[in-house]
Amino acid sequence: MSAALRSRLVARTAEFIDIPSVSFAEGPMVDHLEAELRRLAHLSVDRVGDNLVARTMLGRPQRLVLAGHTDTVPVNGNDRARIEGDVVWGLGAADMKAGLVVMAELAAALREPAVDATYVFYAREEVAAEHSGLEELFVQAPELLAGDAAILGEPTSGRIEAGCQGTLRARITLRGARAHTARPWMGRNAIHRLGALLEALARFEPRQPEVGGLRWREALQAVQVSGGVAGNVVPDEASVTVNHRFAPDRDVDEALAEVRRVVAPYLEDGDRVELTESSPAGRPALDHPLLAALHRRSGAEVEAKLGWTDVARFSARGVPAVNFGPGDSTLAHTAEERVDAASIVAVHDVLASLLAG
Amino acid sequence: MSAALRSRLVARTAEFIDIPSVSFAEGPMVDHLEAELRRLAHLSVDRVGDNLVARTMLGRPQRLVLAGHTDTVPVNGNDRARIEGDVVWGLGAADMKAGLVVMAELAAALREPAVDATYVFYAREEVAAEHSGLEELFVQAPELLAGDAAILGEPTSGRIEAGCQGTLRARITLRGARAHTARPWMGRNAIHRLGALLEALARFEPRQPEVGGLRWREALQAVQVSGGVAGNVVPDEASVTVNHRFAPDRDVDEALAEVRRVVAPYLEDGDRVELTESSPAGRPALDHPLLAALHRRSGAEVEAKLGWTDVARFSARGVPAVNFGPGDSTLAHTAEERVDAASIVAVHDVLASLLAG
Repeated sequence: MSAALRSRLVARTAEFIDIPSVSFAEGPMVDHLEAELRRLAHLSVDRVGDNLVARTMLGRPQRLVLAGHTDTVPVNGNDRARIEGDVVWGLGAADMKAGLVVMAELAAALREPAVDATYVFYAREEVAAEHSGLEELFVQAPELLAGDAAILGEPTSGRIEAGCQGTLRARITLRGARAHTARPWMGRNAIHRLGALLEALARFEPRQPEVGGLRWREALQAVQVSGGVAGNVVPDEASVTVNHRFAPDRDVDEALAEVRRVVAPYLEDGDRVELTESSPAGRPALDHPLLAALHRRSGAEVEAKLGWTDVARFSARGVPAVNFGPGDSTLAHTAEERVDAASIVAVHDVLASLLAG
Repeated sequence: MSAALRSRLVARTAEFIDIPSVSFAEGPMVDHLEAELRRLAHLSVDRVGDNLVARTMLGRPQRLVLAGHTDTVPVNGNDRARIEGDVVWGLGAADMKAGLVVMAELAAALREPAVDATYVFYAREEVAAEHSGLEELFVQAPELLAGDAAILGEPTSGRIEAGCQGTLRARITLRGARAHTARPWMGRNAIHRLGALLEALARFEPRQPEVGGLRWREALQAVQVSGGVAGNVVPDEASVTVNHRFAPDRDVDEALAEVRRVVAPYLEDGDRVELTESSPAGRPALDHPLLAALHRRSGAEVEAKLGWTDVARFSARGVPAVNFGPGDSTLAHTAEERVDAASIVAVHDVLASLLAG
């Protein structure tokens, strides 16, 4: 590995940090990438809104997708880059300007990779799922995202996150009967009924199944509770919203059935369970040859991703996907966000080797 | 009892119903009463805002206060009076235009009662306690409300409600620690902690003490619950507001201590119990000679009033007070509100006899 490359990756990470790209304001960052990639004759470049896709078109039997989001969370006093020795500090350093730099470098350097390469730069990952630029691409131009496997450059400290857990939210509404609080026996208190249900949630021990050679850890948590009519009224309705995180051996229907099973003993006629939001899990993907090669060449530890990530969007379309990128995710979204040169170079070199074949 | 009086009471109840006096708009009703009472030379009349007080000033050793509110709940398709046989229908018929008619009739007819009489017509009873016209009088002109005992003309179907239960509201806030819902073991779910507390409220059996010869029935009910940060966050705070109705053998401090005792097993450092609102109970008052005489002369059933009423405002100032009036309170605030002639006449005659001595 050359010292020149190392310096260049560090300098370009600082340069990318200095182009602000908070969610919904990624335009200048995308413009910058687009100008750079359009100068490269070996790439076919398409822009859809603030999403950018650059592809080699070599007719190789396999195609690998490298994808990363261009947006950052809001500024936090660290919107200007600072280089100290081998470390680059600043908003988005790890999440995920360094990953974008690696993609841009590979796109420029590898004119004839052994597999066709698709570089996807997408908008609005750090905000509500409904705004996702990646989803926009899957809906507007799915052909641009076609591929045999995908690697997303989220910060993983150089580890491989194989698949991810799914997530759903469901609102459980319990009914009662109104009465004056001075005569509560004339009614039935719906908030009191929540007690046994919340106790059951507190007691519940979620599964920790092994799937794809990895240990997963499900969760079932109340995230919202509400109820009440007035200060002198026995309330006739109360509800709790739960968030269930589920392992990749279950789809949304099976996960919802688990929630229903847990709460069923506390439901009566008139009560309701409503699914309000769901995203399927991403299946562990290391059995695909391209991702198995990534694992072998990187020597990286493999982890089960307990939170939901965009790998599930590829997984849902039948494209095996993992997260693999420079930087420490626990520093992301903090004022201490940073990335070190060794981490950027290591990811760069593994991906370069993988694409070179 | 003369048929003329009976007709007159019925006609005047209809007349009073036809003068609209929804809360905060009692002016015309008060003007009407004021004009009528100021014509009576044996009464000293004072008006404070939309509250009106008329007193005999005979220097009698005892003074009895008769009090009633002039306001009604909002119109409900029944704002015009309708007389059908012996029944007067209309908004406020029972609650409490018939009671006001009885007061106005007694004020006019009894020039030299055996005890001095104070007739209090007050505004804004049907709305939040903070707007109470009776409280306004107690603050602005307490001397006008001085007396040895008080009878409030709320509809009791001719029964005597001796005293009333107190009421308080307290907010109990439980703390937790935030975490991502994919890693809930890094935090502590405050909504889950509510489970055991709500279970305890559901299980709790309130006291039914005997006080003043009456059986009371306390209550402790959750009336509001809230908590939640975001759909992917283990919440660090959740709260429940309880309404406690307590018998007249306890003051607010003792009642709050009871609430604290019930919830204490579920509290930890950092949790809070806050008193947000309270009104003391009204003590049973039938041991006072004037009210004992009311009981004896009326032959009325005596009841413990489980809800809070304005008798507690007199009780808190050391004036024994009861509710005693024509009409059925279960019809109040409904489109079927009505009062029958027999009920008005019966209350009129008992009070006339009591004042005549």
